[in-house]
Amino acid sequence: MIYIGMKIKEKILTFSTHGDCDIKEITAEAEDFVKESGAKEGIIVVFAPGATAAVTTMEYEPGLISDMKKFFRMLAPDEKESWRHDAGSPSGNATSHLRASLAGPSVAIPFSDGKLSLGIWQKIVFIDFDTRPRSRKVILKIIGE
Amino acid sequence: MIYIGMKIKEKILTFSTHGDCDIKEITAEAEDFVKESGAKEGIIVVFAPGATAAVTTMEYEPGLISDMKKFFRMLAPDEKESWRHDAGSPSGNATSHLRASLAGPSVAIPFSDGKLSLGIWQKIVFIDFDTRPRSRKVILKIIGE
Amino acid sequence: MIYIGMKIKEKILTFSTHGDCDIKEITAEAEDFVKESGAKEGIIVVFAPGATAAVTTMEYEPGLISDMKKFFRMLAPDEKESWRHDAGSPSGNATSHLRASLAGPSVAIPFSDGKLSLGIWQKIVFIDFDTRPRSRKVILKIIGE
Repeated sequence: MIYIGMKIKEKILTFSTHGDCDIKEITAEAEDFVKESGAKEGIIVVFAPGATAAVTTMEYEPGLISDMKKFFRMLAPDEKESWRHDAGSPSGNATSHLRASLAGPSVAIPFSDGKLSLGIWQKIVFIDFDTRPRSRKVILKIIGE
Repeated sequence: MIYIGMKIKEKILTFSTHGDCDIKEITAEAEDFVKESGAKEGIIVVFAPGATAAVTTMEYEPGLISDMKKFFRMLAPDEKESWRHDAGSPSGNATSHLRASLAGPSVAIPFSDGKLSLGIWQKIVFIDFDTRPRSRKVILKIIGE
Repeated sequence: MIYIGMKIKEKILTFSTHGDCDIKEITAEAEDFVKESGAKEGIIVVFAPGATAAVTTMEYEPGLISDMKKFFRMLAPDEKESWRHDAGSPSGNATSHLRASLAGPSVAIPFSDGKLSLGIWQKIVFIDFDTRPRSRKVILKIIGE
């Protein structure tokens, strides 16, 4: 008997970011990892391990990238005197935390026939909301068969 | 030996929307698909394949449906001159994109004994933030046993 | 043949909350449950079964906990006359619903070698946005091997 069963596979992406709502597009990396895994049906969880970064999807278009940064600054304005986290912190990154927790650290994306079920313009992005350049990781976790 | 193992099942819902924060409730479709799958324990990932739509949960009550639309318009106001994505786009849907990326394209919902673990008033909704009527898909992906 | 396969495990956490953006940190409970499950590789879905609560991750620091509450009140201000859900409801909790749907009911977190892949300061939190004390549940669902 050959049992073709479920598999769980993990890949960690590493890259550097500029901070301040820096947006890294990682769709190709996720697509390639699904192919490498050999799984045809399943989900991939894309996870940002950190309290000042988030993962979501968006059309990766220059105007919209700029708009997205502006949008998150509108939602959580950088008025340092008004955030208590900044009172005791040299990093002054309270709004980085607020934006990251709101956008959320993970997305779960289905794949079928070995391909991610994304819309045509929909790309997977990691957003670094921190106030300074960082070395970052993203966890890709596949559960599939 | 009969091996009762894990299974992965997918169903694609299709429907038309009016755009402009049109909210479609899809709880019954997700519940029914869990039943059809035969899985008793697991998760269902509900995913919006597109950059101007989102999936979340809410109480599906007329007043709140109206409030939700107002809320997302407050968060990302439709002032076209202020969004760069609209400068080069005839669609003028920058805020559709911003709202969708913020709300997020996916939720993962556990089920147990063949039933979704939702709260009493908690319904699964697809929100179409685009500026025009669309033909839409939602991916339901079950991983369970 | 010994087949070491996938497993699905569920645990339900119960606790009481004060409402009004009360934030409960549940990282240790999730970590412990991964250990108990015996799974080394997989994901844990953390889900809030209710329409006025959410799950996300954040640095669990007193200043930031205070900032987070302020932030969600800024995003959805408590002006009761302006929300239609409050017109017919004695609970007056329209903004609880709006905040919860925006933040989202679930996160999916990978684990590897039996440990959650969280950042150093990143904790899992349940946020109760309701306007009154509640008895609450959180569903932890592990899919792993």
